[in-house]
Amino acid sequence: MSQYWSPLVQQLEPYVPGEQPKDQRYIKLNTNECPYPPSPKVLAAIQAELSATLRLYPDPNADLFKEAIAAYYGLERKQVFVGNGSDEVLAHVFHALFKPDQPLLFPDISYSFYPVYANLYQLPVKQIPLTADFSLDLSAYIQPNGGIIFPNPNAPTGSAIELAAIEQLLIRNQHSVVVVDEAYVDFGAETAIPLIDKYPHLLVVQTLSKSRSLAGLRVGFAVGHPDLIEGLERVKNSFNSYPLDRLAIVGAAAAMQDQTYFAEICQRIIATRETTVAHLQQLDFQVLPSSANFVFARPPAGNAEAMYLALKEQGVLVRYFNKPRVQEYLRITIGTEAEMLVLLEKLKALLAN
Amino acid sequence: MSQYWSPLVQQLEPYVPGEQPKDQRYIKLNTNECPYPPSPKVLAAIQAELSATLRLYPDPNADLFKEAIAAYYGLERKQVFVGNGSDEVLAHVFHALFKPDQPLLFPDISYSFYPVYANLYQLPVKQIPLTADFSLDLSAYIQPNGGIIFPNPNAPTGSAIELAAIEQLLIRNQHSVVVVDEAYVDFGAETAIPLIDKYPHLLVVQTLSKSRSLAGLRVGFAVGHPDLIEGLERVKNSFNSYPLDRLAIVGAAAAMQDQTYFAEICQRIIATRETTVAHLQQLDFQVLPSSANFVFARPPAGNAEAMYLALKEQGVLVRYFNKPRVQEYLRITIGTEAEMLVLLEKLKALLAN
Repeated sequence: MSQYWSPLVQQLEPYVPGEQPKDQRYIKLNTNECPYPPSPKVLAAIQAELSATLRLYPDPNADLFKEAIAAYYGLERKQVFVGNGSDEVLAHVFHALFKPDQPLLFPDISYSFYPVYANLYQLPVKQIPLTADFSLDLSAYIQPNGGIIFPNPNAPTGSAIELAAIEQLLIRNQHSVVVVDEAYVDFGAETAIPLIDKYPHLLVVQTLSKSRSLAGLRVGFAVGHPDLIEGLERVKNSFNSYPLDRLAIVGAAAAMQDQTYFAEICQRIIATRETTVAHLQQLDFQVLPSSANFVFARPPAGNAEAMYLALKEQGVLVRYFNKPRVQEYLRITIGTEAEMLVLLEKLKALLAN
Repeated sequence: MSQYWSPLVQQLEPYVPGEQPKDQRYIKLNTNECPYPPSPKVLAAIQAELSATLRLYPDPNADLFKEAIAAYYGLERKQVFVGNGSDEVLAHVFHALFKPDQPLLFPDISYSFYPVYANLYQLPVKQIPLTADFSLDLSAYIQPNGGIIFPNPNAPTGSAIELAAIEQLLIRNQHSVVVVDEAYVDFGAETAIPLIDKYPHLLVVQTLSKSRSLAGLRVGFAVGHPDLIEGLERVKNSFNSYPLDRLAIVGAAAAMQDQTYFAEICQRIIATRETTVAHLQQLDFQVLPSSANFVFARPPAGNAEAMYLALKEQGVLVRYFNKPRVQEYLRITIGTEAEMLVLLEKLKALLAN
């Protein structure tokens, strides 16, 4: 605490990201990165941009990247907003599109950055409990609110919700913005992007950190009605004119364009996930149905924290949340097949002790 | 205007950056970029990082870059904050370190992003007029305030202020944070960084966009007392855990390390500036003394806007501000010697008509 902090800072409780060890000795199944490299076309595009032109500012609107997103989803450029990771995009969403006069609604078990953003921008919140089986019941969101946000699939549970349920919410809640955070949508859920032409209060947020293998490049985007996008642009242009650097813009555009590579990566991860779930169930883990690149699993003896620590000791990082309702679960990122076999061997040995 | 915007967005007036034309046909003297490429060591460091590891999140603390800054200035890592361009760093400074109960003080003629940030974070402001000769009189800042910020050298004037005057301000204003924005300091002003050990309320902000030739990579930093840095980290970690991507971290660190190249670039720009000033004076321009990589100059006929437009027509971009007190001036970035000769020939021809 310092006398020189603003009143806001004195009460902030920042987000704590998963561990990012600096050495390479861990099998890293804790922050939902992709186990496969980015498309060779991404590396080639960055290579081509890596030159004396780094002395010049990037395009403040990152139009090359916006056009690649628009082309991929059949949208217009003015329906697209981009940022320095979907975390930055989400921060601007909280600032630009949620209203402080009513509570913001989101699930009690969800991305733990949501309450942090709400606190940063001084928005009242109301967390809506997931059902007993950890699924999202959107009918519970029909109540006074200044905005609604939820991930689909949800994290850390991995559960997806059907588009019909989202559309019902959009019809019954028309006075405030509904944000669907689709960080993990490419691994088996259905994107809500086709609904944006019909619902001017729907915003869909995606990231290139997971299914596009680019967590290290920091790129995310949002799509929605041009009025929502303009609100986001106004905040962005009051914060940082050039959030995406030259290398990120060309790399991200190339990632959206290489559809073949992308489809192959997603299929491999989905296949590995299904095998992993079967193996975990054989070990008597209770595994939630996952449409993401991770699984949320409860060890048979209920000793999740001890198991997280034992795995870390043995060089395998998974994510453990010491929070109500989920403290008996581990969130395990889907790695390569070889990495998952190592994990399963270690779990087997731990359970045998 | 949209019913879905937050109350804040409805009253934002975003910053408008200088033009960034997408074709290369302009001689670009309008956004104070460096005319010389980044150090070859920067390109080599990025090249070495350009690999499959882009699939992994970067170090959220960018310690490699922080250590390079600390080593360059003889500081400890906990005295260093880094961000996605000094614009992002400044945004967090406004949010974390300025107090809303008293007006924030900054010069009336200065970086035009300051009032935008203040509006974004709802801080009252009081702009303190520069003196008649466009210099900064810091004694005018001894009055109730929630914070003080000014560039040294100032922009768009280019005028530097002495360290002794800054130290006097720090002694006489101890209750609030004083921020010195040193975007252009390497071109002839004296950095206030040596004062941070003595004054816990001094924060110095720098960028790699100008003297390090890396506007396209988006990197900036702040140094100050560890308590100030911790306040900034709390806001940053409530906004975006990973503001610098993997390529930016290694490139920025290499830029800080290559001191020989850096010194050579700065010397060349200073030499070109001095020649340019002499030539402009021969053409009867009134030129403010500059310690920056640009000059602020008043055409002899007082027709700055017409001259800006004529130059643009002929393929040379300079910056014109249609604002009180400065609307008779052009801000001209120092380019290569060859670029400045082209500019001077065109100015000569325009004046002869």
